[in-house]
Amino acid sequence: MQIAVVLYPGFTALDAIGPYETLGPLPGAETVFVAEQAGPVRNDRGNLALVAEKSFAEVTRPDIVIVPGAPPVAVEPHLGGGPLLDWLRTADVATTWTTSVCTGSLMLGAAGLLKGRRATSHWLSLDHLASFGVTPTGDRVVFDHKYVTAAGVSSGIDMGLTLAGMIAGDRHAQAVQLLIEYDPQPPYDAGSPDKAPADLVEHFRTQGLPSSSPAR
Amino acid sequence: MQIAVVLYPGFTALDAIGPYETLGPLPGAETVFVAEQAGPVRNDRGNLALVAEKSFAEVTRPDIVIVPGAPPVAVEPHLGGGPLLDWLRTADVATTWTTSVCTGSLMLGAAGLLKGRRATSHWLSLDHLASFGVTPTGDRVVFDHKYVTAAGVSSGIDMGLTLAGMIAGDRHAQAVQLLIEYDPQPPYDAGSPDKAPADLVEHFRTQGLPSSSPAR
Repeated sequence: MQIAVVLYPGFTALDAIGPYETLGPLPGAETVFVAEQAGPVRNDRGNLALVAEKSFAEVTRPDIVIVPGAPPVAVEPHLGGGPLLDWLRTADVATTWTTSVCTGSLMLGAAGLLKGRRATSHWLSLDHLASFGVTPTGDRVVFDHKYVTAAGVSSGIDMGLTLAGMIAGDRHAQAVQLLIEYDPQPPYDAGSPDKAPADLVEHFRTQGLPSSSPAR
Repeated sequence: MQIAVVLYPGFTALDAIGPYETLGPLPGAETVFVAEQAGPVRNDRGNLALVAEKSFAEVTRPDIVIVPGAPPVAVEPHLGGGPLLDWLRTADVATTWTTSVCTGSLMLGAAGLLKGRRATSHWLSLDHLASFGVTPTGDRVVFDHKYVTAAGVSSGIDMGLTLAGMIAGDRHAQAVQLLIEYDPQPPYDAGSPDKAPADLVEHFRTQGLPSSSPAR
């Protein structure tokens, strides 16, 4: 079983690493980080590079595809077409699961893979997702056929654990959860637009998703 | 403000990325990934490399140090001394916060920085931590003076958010939490040894922390 994690300039690191750490331990799985060209790929904040071991041309039939999200400025250049969408459409023909985290679902939508399906995305990108003929939902993890989409950034951990359980059984997924000690205790209850302070939600709804972080 | 994330061969990626995504947005902060030598550093599972932008020699006075953990096989070679512990001791002189995730606290302990202090680690490594004159605690995030230690792997997210709130205020940390949509909904309640199925906990207590994942 081959798991392909897609990298592209400006991706959000936790979007990729959450599913990687939870799906990577699947029995018999090998994971490959893949990009248009093999080599280091820089993230949204610009100070971290992950290495793509293979190019798109070298990874043609992955069983599971994971598409991390990124700020709009890094996602939008791909939405009109190009190597990334082409590769997604080709790879998707043979996948058992095609997955995304955060705005990664916009890539799947733009590739035409989610037409008529239910899917999710970062809470600030749900309207954009709808523009691809998708029924957007605010759920944290959404399954529709073989398409699994997760909400913003950190939700990829929940998506990965859920999918790991479906593929390899509850006990395997519980072992993964125990080993990564995923017993979340956030210091605030501000992780979704219906829980965060209303003025903060309004601020980002007006401003849109920042290009890197709230500090910039 | 400079944040240094320490990389070494065999580190666990989520240990580094959790605090990176939550502390990186601190106002005025620049983050640097640092290792004994600059260049790609491969993780515990061997199929992912993060790029260290700077060598230890180039990063001498970081304000915040983050030491990710790793399976014992990757941590133990450092515990007797060497460039990593030397750098930690030197850097620690000027830090405002010295932090770790998972077995990263064993590095801090071996460097002598936690003597007489309370700290935590991966649940399977708490006894080992005690051998460095530390009072181990099973809490998810432990503050003692400027030393902040987090439990296993995913707890670095909670640690990062908590510390971000202390440094830049609740509103900043809530904005970070909202933007990474950290509203955890794990599919199981198996993320700590007191919640996971008892036979699974016993299995790992007998076997010890696996070198990479439950599947190997």
